[in-house]
Formats: sequence, C-alpha cells, structure tokens
Amino acid sequence: MSADKKKKSVKIICENLRRIRVISVPIFRPYRRDAAKEAPMKSDIPQLMHERGLDALVVYGNTDTSSDLAYLAAGAHLERAMVLHVRGQEPVLFASVLERENAEATGLATRLWSDYPLSRYLQETDGDLAAARIAQWRDIFADYGVQGRVGFYGLMDMGFAYRFLTDLAAALPEIEVVGENPPNLFNAARETKDAREIEIMRAVGQATTAVIANVFDFLSGHRAQGDALIQADGSPLTIGDVKAFIRMELAKRNLEEPHPTIFSQGRDAGVPHNAGRPDMPLRLGQTIIFDIFPRDRATGYFHDITRTFFLGHAPDALVEKWLDVKRVFDEVMAAIRVGEPGGKFQQMTCDLFEVMNYPTICVDPQTTVGYIHSLGHGVGLDIHEGPRLSTIGPQTILRPGHVVSVEPGLYFPDDGWGVRIEDTIAFDENGEIINLSDFPYEMVIPVRA
Amino acid sequence: MSADKKKKSVKIICENLRRIRVISVPIFRPYRRDAAKEAPMKSDIPQLMHERGLDALVVYGNTDTSSDLAYLAAGAHLERAMVLHVRGQEPVLFASVLERENAEATGLATRLWSDYPLSRYLQETDGDLAAARIAQWRDIFADYGVQGRVGFYGLMDMGFAYRFLTDLAAALPEIEVVGENPPNLFNAARETKDAREIEIMRAVGQATTAVIANVFDFLSGHRAQGDALIQADGSPLTIGDVKAFIRMELAKRNLEEPHPTIFSQGRDAGVPHNAGRPDMPLRLGQTIIFDIFPRDRATGYFHDITRTFFLGHAPDALVEKWLDVKRVFDEVMAAIRVGEPGGKFQQMTCDLFEVMNYPTICVDPQTTVGYIHSLGHGVGLDIHEGPRLSTIGPQTILRPGHVVSVEPGLYFPDDGWGVRIEDTIAFDENGEIINLSDFPYEMVIPVRA
Repeated sequence: MSADKKKKSVKIICENLRRIRVISVPIFRPYRRDAAKEAPMKSDIPQLMHERGLDALVVYGNTDTSSDLAYLAAGAHLERAMVLHVRGQEPVLFASVLERENAEATGLATRLWSDYPLSRYLQETDGDLAAARIAQWRDIFADYGVQGRVGFYGLMDMGFAYRFLTDLAAALPEIEVVGENPPNLFNAARETKDAREIEIMRAVGQATTAVIANVFDFLSGHRAQGDALIQADGSPLTIGDVKAFIRMELAKRNLEEPHPTIFSQGRDAGVPHNAGRPDMPLRLGQTIIFDIFPRDRATGYFHDITRTFFLGHAPDALVEKWLDVKRVFDEVMAAIRVGEPGGKFQQMTCDLFEVMNYPTICVDPQTTVGYIHSLGHGVGLDIHEGPRLSTIGPQTILRPGHVVSVEPGLYFPDDGWGVRIEDTIAFDENGEIINLSDFPYEMVIPVRA
Repeated sequence: MSADKKKKSVKIICENLRRIRVISVPIFRPYRRDAAKEAPMKSDIPQLMHERGLDALVVYGNTDTSSDLAYLAAGAHLERAMVLHVRGQEPVLFASVLERENAEATGLATRLWSDYPLSRYLQETDGDLAAARIAQWRDIFADYGVQGRVGFYGLMDMGFAYRFLTDLAAALPEIEVVGENPPNLFNAARETKDAREIEIMRAVGQATTAVIANVFDFLSGHRAQGDALIQADGSPLTIGDVKAFIRMELAKRNLEEPHPTIFSQGRDAGVPHNAGRPDMPLRLGQTIIFDIFPRDRATGYFHDITRTFFLGHAPDALVEKWLDVKRVFDEVMAAIRVGEPGGKFQQMTCDLFEVMNYPTICVDPQTTVGYIHSLGHGVGLDIHEGPRLSTIGPQTILRPGHVVSVEPGLYFPDDGWGVRIEDTIAFDENGEIINLSDFPYEMVIPVRA
C-alpha cells in the first residue's frame, strides 16, 4: 500500500470510527439530571406554568418563524397554528385543514380551525373579522375550559397582538391575559437542551465544519497574482464567488441560511455584521472573518462558528491582533464552566482586552472600535437565544444542557481589520464542555503561487 | 408658426423624447397611476398614516422575519432594528452598532441603539430590564417629538408585545398606542407593487420556472421499471432525491425555501400542504403536485407556482380530474380582472366546481375533500399577503399593481389523488394581466422505457 493510500484508508477508518462513536450515543436517552444542577427544559413546561401561576398557555404563529411553536411542533411545518395547553390537560394543536396531516405527524392531539368555521362567526358578527376571531377563540376557550391566567407566546404583528389581546381580555372576563417580559417561559425551557437535542446539534456542527473545510480547500486551490486571488481564467476571485460556493455546500447538506453568512474582508471585517460585498476581489494578507451560522432544515437547529484567516500570508502587525483574540478565546474557553453567571465571562473578556489596551463596551458602552459586543449567546432553534454571555440584563447561571457560542473579537475598520474567533459549546450532564465546532484555528490559508 | 414657438415646441418634443427614453427603461420607471384605479403603495405611507390618524409609526423586529421592516429596509439584513416615522419628518432607522453599515446602506437616516445605552437605563431602574427598555424608548420618543397616536408594526412575541405596549402606554401618557387589526397600513401599502417590484418579481418567476424545467428534465431522464422510476444503479428514485435536486437548483439561482417545497404524490397530494415523504419512491401514473414558492435571497420577493403531472402515463379517470381543474383554472384566468373584489373569483371557482359535482368550502366550510381552500393570495415579501381571493373577510377590489396567485385544486386523499394548478399573475398599469409564471401546463412527463 502506498503511503498515500495508507493515509486515505486510515482516514476512512477514522471516519468510520467517528461515525460509530456518534451512533453509539443512545439518542433517545432521557437527560439525566443532577438535582443540584437542575435547569428547566421541555418536559418541565407544566412546572414552568405552575411557577408563573399560569392556568393555560397559547402559542400561536407559523413554525417557520415562531421558534417557540417549532419547539412544540417537533419539526412539522405549519403556517398558522396554535398550541393550547391547559394545566393538567394534554396540549392540543390547532391547524388548518390544508395542514392536518403535518399537524397529526407531531404526535400532539390535533383540532382543525374549520371545526370553528370563521364563516359562521362572520355571520354572527355581521362580517366584522376582528369580532369574528374573538368569537372563535371564545368558543375554543370555552370548549377547553380555559380560564384564569393565560400566557400568550409566538410571533405576531406587535400592534395586532396588543389589539387582539386587549379585545380578548375585554370579551372574556374569566381570563387574565398574561404577557411575559423576557426571559419568558419558553426562553427558560429552551435554553436547556436534552441529550437528543445536543446530539442533533453535534451533527449540525459536523455538517457546518465540513462546509468550512471545503471552503478552505476551495480557497487554497486558487492561485495568487500580485496580492489578488485569481480564477483559472485569470479573473479575480470575489467574495460573491465564495458565497456562491458556500451556498452549494450548504444545500448539499440540507443546511439553510435564514440570516446571511458573513464573509468580510479587511476594513469591512471591522464592523461585526458586515456580510461582505459580493463584488469585492479577495486579497492576500488581509483579515477575513468567516462567520457561518446555518440552520439544519430537517431539525430546525442552528450552529454558529467563526474563523478569521488570511490568504497566503499574514502581516506581522495583524498576526499580533489575531493572537490577541486567540489568547482571550483560549483563556475564556479554559475558564468557562457551569455554576457561574454568563456575564462573568463577558467581564473576564473585557478585562483581558483592557489589559491589552483595547477599548471595550464594558468601559465605554458607545465605543465603535475594540471589543464591542457580548461574548456569546445561546444557540438552538434560534441563532440567538438564552443564555446570554453578557453583563447587561438578568444573569443566567450556566448549567448542564446549555449550548452557547464563545466569540471574542476586535474591530478597527479605519485600520482595515477585524478578528473574531468563535466556537459553539455544550455543557454535558456533568458540566463538561462538548465543543460542537470541531475545526482547527487556522490563521493562514496557503494559496498556489 | 413663429420661430420662437417652433423652438419651444421642438424643445417640448425633445423633452418628451427624453422622457420617453427614460420611460422605456422599465425597471426605474415610476409607476404611472390612473386616479380611477389608484391603490396605495410604499410612497403613500404618509397618506396611509393620515387616513388612520397616526402621528407616528414604529416598525420593530428582524428584517429576516418581519417583512414590514424588510419592506422599509430595502434589502438590508438587520437583526434588531426599528424604523420610527413621525408624520412630517423623514423616517429614522435604529440599528445595533454591529450592523451600522448595513443600516446606512438602506439610505435611511440611521441612529444606533447605543446612542441610548441600555446599561445607563439599567442603572436608572436598578437593573430592571423591562423598565430600562421603557425608559430607553421614552427618551427616544422625546428626542423625536413622538406624541399622539402611534401605530406599532413588526413581528414580536405576542405576549411581550401586549405587555410592552401596555407598559409603554402607561409610562407615556402623551402617546396613544394604536394596534391595527388586519388589513393594516403595511398590508394596504404592500399589496400594490410598483413597476420596479413587478420587474423583480418577473425575474424571480423566471428563475423559478427555470428550476421547474430542470426538474422535469431530471425526471424524464430516468427510466421506468414496472410502475417505479429508477436511478442508474437500479435503486428507486425517491421524493427525497428529487427534493435534493430541487435544493441544488434553487441554490444555484440564489433562491431559498423559507417554507418547504411541496412535491407530493398520490394520496399525499390529496392534502394540500403535505410536502411529500422523502423516502417515498416515485411511481408512474399518479398525480404529483409540485408546488414551489421560493424567495429570492437578493431581493426578498417570493414566487408561487404549481404544476400537477403524471410520470409516464396518466390513467383516464385521473386525466378527467386534471382537466376539470385545468378548465376551472382557464375560466378563472380568462375572467379575473381589476375593478372586482377578489372574493368574486373564489365564488366563481366554487360555482364551477359545484356544477361538476365536487364538494366545496363555499357550501360546506368543514369539508376535507373537493375544493377546500381559497383561490389565491397576494405574493410579495411574504408568500401569503394581500389581496386574498377569498369570500371570507374584508374584500379588496383588484387593482393595477396587485400580484396574486390563482390556484384552483381538488383533493381526494382516500381516492389517492390531488390536483392543483397555479400561476402568479400581476396586473399592469392598464389592468392587463402579466403572467409571472411562464411555464407550460404539462400533464404527463414522459420517462425512458
């Protein structure tokens, strides 16, 4: 066997072993929780209702945008649906007749909106649609014995939500409309992932890093001409070309980009959410922030990972900046652990950057340069969810089952650069870190001379 | 004619010619409106505010989910943003410091949330985040002179919207919170597309039909074995395989599927929103509903088109059903026109199907078989928007600039079939139909023997 073939076959064995290892994790194992570390999750919804004094809850919306509804609908796509959960009863899913089989596939008890036909209520209300909707919900609530404190969740036009719930409260004196400030019941439940969710998220991480690996290979397969990267025909390779490649790599893996991938270069990388200008040619020796956070279409879960790299070579002055961020990243990754509030690690990040003489938002909340965002956020059915690694707002203690991004960065657009390094990590049942972003921290991608 | 008059008239001709030249470039042509047919659109927002007695409006949210915000942000991706529009002033866009350059790219006047740092308000409110948010908005509203009736729009958790707006109204006695029942100001503005939007939507239609053409070729390139379609290696071709092919075709054209494409076969096609089971092998002689409604990532606009076809051959009994739907589709397409309420064509569709002895929701709102949905819906930055071609709810008169789907269908899952045929059409400035779904109505896709 040639050395090359050997290498290849070892690689295959390793891949198979890796696959076997993943498969051997029993994916339906209920999450074993230590009372001392306990944090609420999906199965705790009745308890979370009890703590809030809720007699019922309603989650309304479209599963493709309302992630709380997607959380309950377990992967089904429903355009206009409602979960009604009365304390002590099984939740009921209301769906359109057009989506009745998607609804049934959730395993929840289902009802059809047409069981309460709007056309009938419109007759009752002389064609007043708003009044007809209230009458429809009045009958549904009556049939399911909804009374007392009712919490409402799911995305809706904010003005309509205010109007509808105000009118509903007026029409149904037996209920009290409860609207929660964040973090609400679903924020609390969703921020803890069970073992099944973590396995899903591990797989989404693997698919995402496979995309990154192919993007890196794609780039290093190109040739430099002067300080530009060029294609086979001699034309410059642009950010738009790279993004088109990324799109195909994502589509192959059934990943989607509900929010656009960031591939930003030089000064543009100096503003964290600049996504990169499609017509910009790639240049050697500049910081390129590649922040990719796709959603798995099959399960709805996101992954979030960032690498900053240089094509061809890295100028000494920027190598230092890159290493500064990497040092902070490493220190925070070594320190972060369960039992501490998320804000503690944001403060640590600020302190480390300040020692290096960079401006930070901890000292100046209005700075536009230096370290200007929070350290990280929960990742799940939303790209940004709880717990937040931020000093601002209510502090969540990190717990087993939490999945968060860790993403220190530095931004100086006027000096032509930005650096961010990010992994998404999960805390397992023992509080150990599982890094879901298994990809090396490359600084320079070599390109062909 | 005097020389002077001649000169003047030549000048007018020249000006007219210049104007004509500009007008001949369709995509930048301002939408010429006949007063008699006038319908509000984006430029009419001040007028729409006036009609509603609004002194200001607020649109809040994420452009990737809040399409009203996307409408104002003209293609920019913003995670947490707000447009504040005080009557008589230019609208102002509030954005995160991380997204300041995306915000500036909209051309709107921009402000940063960090100009009103939440950390400062948290100190004021002893760490109460909800109170701090109210205090932040109080200062923003004061600085921009917001008072009187304020309309609120954009997607938000419905319970939080109710709570936040109730608290805001209590804290700011100088404002009256206005929440609109649908159709709201943005529904009214967005349902009329200007010439630029129609040109964009025509291009999205062309890209979508190019995908369909390739899917048809892909299918007809396969070989039949018995009643199954098989791949080169002899294994059956499944719906999952077709969907994977569709995904790649969409990605190539920068189209995305925020809601999953429908490719459903046989009995599954008998429930309108069944998306098709990935593991199901394709069979000859069954109805296959292919309903594809992607969004263009570059512009945010959707297209919506459905074809129902058979692989290889069509059984006589099902040919009749297909032709029944096609006949209704043709009659409605010939009849639909501006100046009439959308519901009129839904009623016409029901009447036509009833003459053919099919059950319809017009007669029985609870039927699960026959014709069980509305005729169509507006298409734009949302896949389903106004105007609705439905007899239920407020009736919109069809106008130039409206873009609607026309999609009659029949559904009998227990008999193993469903048929739907759909195009998306626009009414031009003269009320003429522009069919944006330029694709033939194929019934049978021949396959290799």
